[in-house]
Amino acid sequence: MQPKALPGFRDFYPADLALRAHIFRTWRTVATRYGFEEYDGPPLEPLELYTAKSGEEIAGQLYSFTDKGGREVALRPEMTPTLARMVAARANGLRKPIRWFSIPQLFRYERQQRGRLREHFQLNCDLIGEPGPLGDAEIIALAVDALRALGLGSADFRVRLSDRRLLNRLLELLGLRGDQVGLAHQALDKIGRGESAGRQQALLDAGAPAHAIESLDSFRQLRNLSEVEARFPQAAQATAPLRATVTALDAMGLGGFVDLDLTIVRGLAYYTGTVFELFDAKAELRAICGGGRYDNLLQALGGVDLPALGFGMGDVVLAELLRDRGLIPGEASSIDVFLAGITEDDLPHVLALTHELRDAGLRAEYALSSQAVGKQLKLADSRRARLAIVIGPDDRARGEVMVKDLAGKAQSSIARDAVLGHVAGMVAGFTTEAQRTVPLW
Amino acid sequence: MQPKALPGFRDFYPADLALRAHIFRTWRTVATRYGFEEYDGPPLEPLELYTAKSGEEIAGQLYSFTDKGGREVALRPEMTPTLARMVAARANGLRKPIRWFSIPQLFRYERQQRGRLREHFQLNCDLIGEPGPLGDAEIIALAVDALRALGLGSADFRVRLSDRRLLNRLLELLGLRGDQVGLAHQALDKIGRGESAGRQQALLDAGAPAHAIESLDSFRQLRNLSEVEARFPQAAQATAPLRATVTALDAMGLGGFVDLDLTIVRGLAYYTGTVFELFDAKAELRAICGGGRYDNLLQALGGVDLPALGFGMGDVVLAELLRDRGLIPGEASSIDVFLAGITEDDLPHVLALTHELRDAGLRAEYALSSQAVGKQLKLADSRRARLAIVIGPDDRARGEVMVKDLAGKAQSSIARDAVLGHVAGMVAGFTTEAQRTVPLW
Repeated sequence: MQPKALPGFRDFYPADLALRAHIFRTWRTVATRYGFEEYDGPPLEPLELYTAKSGEEIAGQLYSFTDKGGREVALRPEMTPTLARMVAARANGLRKPIRWFSIPQLFRYERQQRGRLREHFQLNCDLIGEPGPLGDAEIIALAVDALRALGLGSADFRVRLSDRRLLNRLLELLGLRGDQVGLAHQALDKIGRGESAGRQQALLDAGAPAHAIESLDSFRQLRNLSEVEARFPQAAQATAPLRATVTALDAMGLGGFVDLDLTIVRGLAYYTGTVFELFDAKAELRAICGGGRYDNLLQALGGVDLPALGFGMGDVVLAELLRDRGLIPGEASSIDVFLAGITEDDLPHVLALTHELRDAGLRAEYALSSQAVGKQLKLADSRRARLAIVIGPDDRARGEVMVKDLAGKAQSSIARDAVLGHVAGMVAGFTTEAQRTVPLW
Repeated sequence: MQPKALPGFRDFYPADLALRAHIFRTWRTVATRYGFEEYDGPPLEPLELYTAKSGEEIAGQLYSFTDKGGREVALRPEMTPTLARMVAARANGLRKPIRWFSIPQLFRYERQQRGRLREHFQLNCDLIGEPGPLGDAEIIALAVDALRALGLGSADFRVRLSDRRLLNRLLELLGLRGDQVGLAHQALDKIGRGESAGRQQALLDAGAPAHAIESLDSFRQLRNLSEVEARFPQAAQATAPLRATVTALDAMGLGGFVDLDLTIVRGLAYYTGTVFELFDAKAELRAICGGGRYDNLLQALGGVDLPALGFGMGDVVLAELLRDRGLIPGEASSIDVFLAGITEDDLPHVLALTHELRDAGLRAEYALSSQAVGKQLKLADSRRARLAIVIGPDDRARGEVMVKDLAGKAQSSIARDAVLGHVAGMVAGFTTEAQRTVPLW
């Protein structure tokens, strides 16, 4: 019986890893353009870091255990508590606003469901120390650009945007009491889904007026802030932050990606302002990204009072969308040049030139066991090399090597002294920048 | 009380992550030049994957626990069992030789010692399906080049090379029996260290002749294969594989990095041929890298009979050596261009140009809160921006913006339509390639 990976954990064979690398590289490139710097923390943290302030949903799914030293620990289910701990430890020394990103692998333990993973990777971007609405625009723009850079456009995905400050003002105007707000959030979150009726009933049972619940149901028809203000003139002041954010996104040219959606509340209790989720435009998949402003969380988690906002964008749903849109990069060849020797005596020359090519940054291979030239060139094909260099006694006597273009089938003799520059030039000529990019993930 | 990371786990603040990224990027670049493709597996695996065949040392230090479903699991202490599992699952479909690398984070749980970590990252390179000595040369050359590419030379580090096939032949010639070979390995491993006498006594107690133990002690004087053959003429045949490997390394121009060292045995029981370790040349630090040939391990672990060899190179000792040699890259600036607006009305123009610059691949920022131009330019300095762009009503009326070189203090008015190309050219001009490299780790 062959051993297997644990249920819910993925193996990344080279083709799988190439896709992951493509996504990570794009995320890193875009985050860097926004001046964000990468950080990381331990995948294993003290359990109490999560039980203290995370939402109930996360606490119930913790991949937690007792270690050999009797310590209660957990594989990280989210990055924000680690971020809060790290920022708190050096709060005074860090320039504000802090622009940090990370690509952690996150874990959860829940009853195993069909196809449900227990780990995924997530781009986390957080902006700390900036209370104003331009910070919100900056974070949302970064999330949008992370998808645009992967080739997705406004017909492929949408940002659904809301603001808890505005929402809570509207709930107040509908006559809901403070203790009914949580239930109202839950009812909004479930609008259009099976559990909707139950949530509305719960709100009714808690004493909310029937007309308010009807109004809630109509929130999804409000598609922009002007419509909100037309219906709730008294909420005009509460729309100001979100309006400033949307105006900034318009100025950046990204307004076309954003829809107001008051049914977006986000499950986590700690959001205090803007909340948003990114979905595929057909709304067939789960959310690609979710985030918002959590101005009180760093205080609660790390004891340092700084406004903050951020988002998490997972790799799994995103990869599904890229596949659906035909945006997965084709398999790249693993080498540029394959070197072959005609006789045993050519081997040292093959080795020397191979190493020169590698030192010059080219990807080069040769046959590790002695075999006929024809078989060596078949190996070159199976590695999808574009060029082959054949070294034989006659060419060597003339101070030359043979360079073959395995795609075009052309070949020419090149002086041994000139072959490095010649081959580097050929490789640069027929490789696009994307193909040349080392898989740095 | 502020929360802390678990003992033995590292936080990576941006400066720490930048060094890690520098090492990972170099590792990936070099592995790719050798035609190696990246893979990854789960950080958590079934416990039995490690208890079956790993060396005792690893089994005793497993970071293992029982999960909520009653499964015995462990955080991976090494990558080879995962590799064996993955290769076995697709053995027939994979082209041989398989050239794979990975950069896993690995974990161990041992009694906490001063400064001793419970996690580290490790470059793992493995070559599977090739039994001959050129495969050994290829793997050793890759390990050498991974350090050369970081700026280290043959005066900074050395490869200590041995071969279990040769060593066991020498032990046989010294008159040691098969059941004494393991003890002889341990005695060799401890030569020159405190535990040496005890190991030699154990060998004596097991019935080994005293002259053999004396000979063992002199093995460290044998510095090349010719000396071995001069002293043990009957071992000439057993030196052949290692000689072929060393000859190939010479042909690649890497012979100057390699020393024969028969005291290198490697702790793990599964090595079957070549074994090697890379050390700093002053021998002040622990090993940077260790590896060798393990032709029977894939059969034992994954049930697929393929010869294989590989190495693991950790990030911790390597970073110490880089620091010692002054090879840590300087802190790079986090942005290229900072944009400032003179009046509130300039903000939409700042946002639009910022986003254009980002879309063109430049790293750009602006002040997220409204403040005087002087304060905005101070923020630009604190972010170590090289360029600033100032947008004001008068310049806008003329269709221009002001571009300031913050290092040279020169400034000039540039047509708004031409600013993108102008700034991109300036950034390309004063940034070295290393600085321009996005921190893709």
